[in-house]
Amino acid sequence: MTNQVTSAKELSVEQQAALTSGTNPWSIGKVEEKGLPNYTITDGPHGLRKAKNLDGMDVDKAVPATCFPPAAGMASSWNPGLVRETGEAMAEECIQEQVAVILGPGINIKRNPLGGRCFEFWSEDPYLAGHEAVGEVEGIQSKGIGTSLKHFAVNNQETDRMRVSANVSQRALREIYLPAFEHIIKTAQPWTVMCAYNKVNDVYASQNKWLLTDVLRDEWGFEGIVMSDWGAVHNRAAALNAGLNLEMPPTNTDDEVVHAVRDGELKPQQLEKMAQGMIDLVTKTRPAMEKGQAGYRYDIDAHDDVARRAAHEAMVLLKNEDGLLPVKPGTKLAVIGEFARTPRYQGAGSSLINPNKLTSFLDALNERGIEADFAPGFTLDDADQDQSLTDEAVKTAAGAETVLLFLGLPAAAESEGFDRTTLDIPAKQVELLKAVAAANKNVVVILSNGSSVSMPWVDDAKSVLEAWLLGQAGGAATADVVFGDVNPSGKLAQTIVDDLSNDPTMLNWPGEEGHVEYGEGIFVGYRYYDTFDKPVTYPFGYGLSYTNFEVSGAKAEKTGPQSARVTATVKNTGSVAGAEVVQFYVAPPKVAVARPVHELKGFEKVYLESGESKEISIDFDFRAFAYWSERFEGWKVEAGRYGIEVATSSRDIADTVFVDLEDDGKAANLTEWSTLKEWKEDPVGGPIVDKVVADLDKRFGRNIMPDSQLAVMFLNSCVVGGMSMLLGVDVGQALREELLAEYAKVTK
Amino acid sequence: MTNQVTSAKELSVEQQAALTSGTNPWSIGKVEEKGLPNYTITDGPHGLRKAKNLDGMDVDKAVPATCFPPAAGMASSWNPGLVRETGEAMAEECIQEQVAVILGPGINIKRNPLGGRCFEFWSEDPYLAGHEAVGEVEGIQSKGIGTSLKHFAVNNQETDRMRVSANVSQRALREIYLPAFEHIIKTAQPWTVMCAYNKVNDVYASQNKWLLTDVLRDEWGFEGIVMSDWGAVHNRAAALNAGLNLEMPPTNTDDEVVHAVRDGELKPQQLEKMAQGMIDLVTKTRPAMEKGQAGYRYDIDAHDDVARRAAHEAMVLLKNEDGLLPVKPGTKLAVIGEFARTPRYQGAGSSLINPNKLTSFLDALNERGIEADFAPGFTLDDADQDQSLTDEAVKTAAGAETVLLFLGLPAAAESEGFDRTTLDIPAKQVELLKAVAAANKNVVVILSNGSSVSMPWVDDAKSVLEAWLLGQAGGAATADVVFGDVNPSGKLAQTIVDDLSNDPTMLNWPGEEGHVEYGEGIFVGYRYYDTFDKPVTYPFGYGLSYTNFEVSGAKAEKTGPQSARVTATVKNTGSVAGAEVVQFYVAPPKVAVARPVHELKGFEKVYLESGESKEISIDFDFRAFAYWSERFEGWKVEAGRYGIEVATSSRDIADTVFVDLEDDGKAANLTEWSTLKEWKEDPVGGPIVDKVVADLDKRFGRNIMPDSQLAVMFLNSCVVGGMSMLLGVDVGQALREELLAEYAKVTK
Repeated sequence: MTNQVTSAKELSVEQQAALTSGTNPWSIGKVEEKGLPNYTITDGPHGLRKAKNLDGMDVDKAVPATCFPPAAGMASSWNPGLVRETGEAMAEECIQEQVAVILGPGINIKRNPLGGRCFEFWSEDPYLAGHEAVGEVEGIQSKGIGTSLKHFAVNNQETDRMRVSANVSQRALREIYLPAFEHIIKTAQPWTVMCAYNKVNDVYASQNKWLLTDVLRDEWGFEGIVMSDWGAVHNRAAALNAGLNLEMPPTNTDDEVVHAVRDGELKPQQLEKMAQGMIDLVTKTRPAMEKGQAGYRYDIDAHDDVARRAAHEAMVLLKNEDGLLPVKPGTKLAVIGEFARTPRYQGAGSSLINPNKLTSFLDALNERGIEADFAPGFTLDDADQDQSLTDEAVKTAAGAETVLLFLGLPAAAESEGFDRTTLDIPAKQVELLKAVAAANKNVVVILSNGSSVSMPWVDDAKSVLEAWLLGQAGGAATADVVFGDVNPSGKLAQTIVDDLSNDPTMLNWPGEEGHVEYGEGIFVGYRYYDTFDKPVTYPFGYGLSYTNFEVSGAKAEKTGPQSARVTATVKNTGSVAGAEVVQFYVAPPKVAVARPVHELKGFEKVYLESGESKEISIDFDFRAFAYWSERFEGWKVEAGRYGIEVATSSRDIADTVFVDLEDDGKAANLTEWSTLKEWKEDPVGGPIVDKVVADLDKRFGRNIMPDSQLAVMFLNSCVVGGMSMLLGVDVGQALREELLAEYAKVTK
Repeated sequence: MTNQVTSAKELSVEQQAALTSGTNPWSIGKVEEKGLPNYTITDGPHGLRKAKNLDGMDVDKAVPATCFPPAAGMASSWNPGLVRETGEAMAEECIQEQVAVILGPGINIKRNPLGGRCFEFWSEDPYLAGHEAVGEVEGIQSKGIGTSLKHFAVNNQETDRMRVSANVSQRALREIYLPAFEHIIKTAQPWTVMCAYNKVNDVYASQNKWLLTDVLRDEWGFEGIVMSDWGAVHNRAAALNAGLNLEMPPTNTDDEVVHAVRDGELKPQQLEKMAQGMIDLVTKTRPAMEKGQAGYRYDIDAHDDVARRAAHEAMVLLKNEDGLLPVKPGTKLAVIGEFARTPRYQGAGSSLINPNKLTSFLDALNERGIEADFAPGFTLDDADQDQSLTDEAVKTAAGAETVLLFLGLPAAAESEGFDRTTLDIPAKQVELLKAVAAANKNVVVILSNGSSVSMPWVDDAKSVLEAWLLGQAGGAATADVVFGDVNPSGKLAQTIVDDLSNDPTMLNWPGEEGHVEYGEGIFVGYRYYDTFDKPVTYPFGYGLSYTNFEVSGAKAEKTGPQSARVTATVKNTGSVAGAEVVQFYVAPPKVAVARPVHELKGFEKVYLESGESKEISIDFDFRAFAYWSERFEGWKVEAGRYGIEVATSSRDIADTVFVDLEDDGKAANLTEWSTLKEWKEDPVGGPIVDKVVADLDKRFGRNIMPDSQLAVMFLNSCVVGGMSMLLGVDVGQALREELLAEYAKVTK
């Protein structure tokens, strides 16, 4: 093979152009005569979906691979180390299959739980999404395989996803939609980023220079390449100019790129830079690809075990009355629900994996040698309920001590490509639950769903285990939790509500006529529900255990003018080993902008034997306290007393400790267009106002400021250039001139 | 005096510049040598506030004038004819005082009830605001005096009002914030419009060409002049270029204008056009000014009577258990509350009138010779409650048969210049109510407030009369209603809620860092509460009477492809004469955009004797059914079955009738960036898809479309240029090419 070039300068414009578009739908551009092969890149993000035919785009025919739990489940683990393990396993599968880059993780914010792709995204909270998904990037890249952080950015819905303009304020971008990307890029340098289909504030992400160059590279220091989502490029030259290295899939438009360089539309340096990124990617992935060519084979069973352990921590125990879970040995069980036999373990679309193995819950019972009566209860299609299925289920339930009832969303209810239209599970399942509960009070509902569902039926179940989608080992993992071999430790990464009509995103969901206004700004998920004190079914961060924990002894110390450290002790006060996720929410004081009552800024998952306790300590930096100021075009911390809540969910606050932070010193410039109030409250302006007013009182021989409270409030809101309206022309003009003159003296 | 020129062409650039700025804070620019005097213009909008000293800007010293009820009260009348009468009276006062233009009406939308100026604005609904306030313009201008429709546009808050950018979608602008202006301009041609202080989508209203020229003049055909709000101009040349004729107050910057013309920054034709507007205004107002110079005197008592009749219809009876109102002759009365002695009858700020007369409720009792025990109950300042006042009030109440309890907002609670921070009336008043109600169950609460207040205490009062601010004759008018000489007929022009935390404007209220995002879009007021089915205390359009009405026999007929007429009969089924406001709400079918469940599109106030009935008939044109389409940049009516609700409030629907309207024919152009669903649903595209798919099935020897429901939903959401992802490259490309080729054949 030809030796690989390492510099794009050694390539012609035509060769550079060739590198910036795929060779086929599943490989990067190649220049064989320069030693640059068309390495394969394929879908993820929770396992490898490598098409058997790389020239086609069929979703259905993929080589077998381990199906790990999709992100909605993984996110509930609050365990980046576990996420990292799944990443390492995925990378090993990539090496065997000679896939240079796996397309994931997908870390878009769950702006609204109806989003069709919520099952493969992480959270409604950017801190959690970034600090968990980073494990996947680190795990995969530690083995020499590339990741593709996607979809950059603001891809939060499926409706009109290829065209819609997500119109978002700078502040919401910086505080909600970008921080997960920012964190992973700064800490793990993913080798690639995938741009979104949609527009961000009217500019296609694929052609958005602000996004792909100004923010991603210049601000955050991204060193990898940006590829397009499949079909997201509208204009090759515009995309290259914006900072997009690779168009996928190819559209045979390299000529356009060459012409654009000739016509001056695209600078040769920019094309060279984009091509250089592609060469560097080949250099980075080559060792792993050569290992794969040499015949590397991964351990299928070991990976299935990783998938099973991942599934353990993905499950969230929402309710457990009378300690119905774990099921005691010898309990006479009824297992009801088609999902126990036909597991729903992943979501549809580009992430659909052809699993190496697949274990249903009934399979797992079999393996354990546990006998239980089974009744399917309902079908997974749209058909109306078949009364005979209900009758059979009720009869089965009546004969048992405990009923394990598997409910959830059928595959057709959620998928890439469209958004859900309701939070509800199918009505026939709810009917079935009610009939079963009437026959047997000891009902455990086990849910399979990729995004949150409403639970107006929750009183009909004594226990509820939210199992999300658990990947190929979900059946076995569920049995491990149900029978108590594993103590559940998942916590909600998204709020569960019964009624979305309060949710402010519903006023602009899913948008219309080509755009969607993010009118709720930063008030997404618990930031809305907690700030506006609205009821939820289960709050963000919530989840039970088979044991109990106590969080105590919280204390805070200031580690700098705008930083702090918080320490607390967590103890397992119950009788079995388990894990608690201690969560830290920063509660800011009143500042110049409206802020959520609190925001997640730290967490730690702690494994403890019965009776064991452990002290944990978390550092909070400037950013933990800051808001994005559009006025200062940057992060801003104002002086004040900041609370740090030590919690086990966003609504279970064990203790709140406080630190008094100093202002970061970013100061506004006072002008005639600043209000009198702004002058008075400014450290420089305040004394000047006092002095000038005293001078003018003397000059005009009377108190120039009115004494009525109403008039003062009116004046305070006026700009100092507009004081004549209330003070009269002479006084108003004199006041304006003197204030500006004194200010100029002090600040020049 | 020199003869007045009629053409700006006869003026020098310097003279033209002089005309485009005031001569002093309260008069227009003058060119005496060309016969152009500096006519006076002064504040309104519910009476004349002419400063005694026209060179100063003191709010407090104004010549006496009749204080009519501010707009919040007038709006509750739902009676444009009555509004017109107040306008005629105001014009007569202008003639006497030689005021050429009175600054009003102010018709900004009450986006949020906390807005400090809600008392002088009309409604949360643009149809109602436009169709009532137009009466003021017509009334004033019928006497040869000019009006100034303000504040153009999107001035919905006081916080940061001189600088804030109101960021609003085109659709919300067109459907909520502009229609009241549009209606009045098209039907009544106000001689002037006043621009707002604030920015609209980042451009100061005073310099916003889109607003002042493209929309106002070119689209709506406005023929008058635009003046600035006092101090709203930042750059004379930019303002003149945008279409602002007159800067107020003057800033002695005519030189800048002259230089701008010399430097080519301002076209001479544009300056001439702006000056011509000022000349035309002088021409129009001259006859009335000359009448005033000749000594015209208006009738103070007649105007007081107009103010009293206006106040009658401004009051809204919210609750009347046990028919406590009207008070029967001989009832032993207790009158409690400082407002009965010290009426709150207008709001603070530029609209503050020095009234010709002023009648308190106690005065009115005196005039009627009715004796009642009075106790002030509380003070109007911030002081904590004085227990002796409570004790006195309770004792007074205990000795009476019926208690008239006057509660409300003190003047310091609401004003131009700042926004309210709470919906609540002062806590001490609520405490007093509870103490009084404990002593006497027969409590009538009479409220004085400029914008809605919360009423969590409503169960403590048997009757509630919302009296808003009633102007100078409010005391007498209130007595007329209390004693049954007048039957109340007001209806709410704004929704009353107890808890604003549901209100979607609260997520962006009052904005921050120089901008406020109108994130709720079109869902303002009842459009939100009714569409999202949220609880309200009293709904929009609500109000009781001393009699009862029955609305029946509603029927609809189509009068054109997108127009209809609805007829209904209203009958007074009670024992006294009274008036009902029949309201018509259009309830659209499901269309391409999210629409409110219903919107007010017609109303009629009907006066009926006991037993009398009347048939009313309302025409609904294209606009009554249309939404603003950003896609088509125009109004759009889609085909479908439209409901028209005949109602007595937004939540009291007597009957709903239906019309099947046709699509207006505006059609989209299909491209490769249209989704498969859009192609299928298009009247032209649908048959093409069928034909091309059949052709390709034949060409490829198989069904090219997948048969799984999931895959079809996925495909439907894809753009036809991106089909390769699911159908394979060959089929995808062929499909795209054939669709576009066939479409070109049909549409070329």
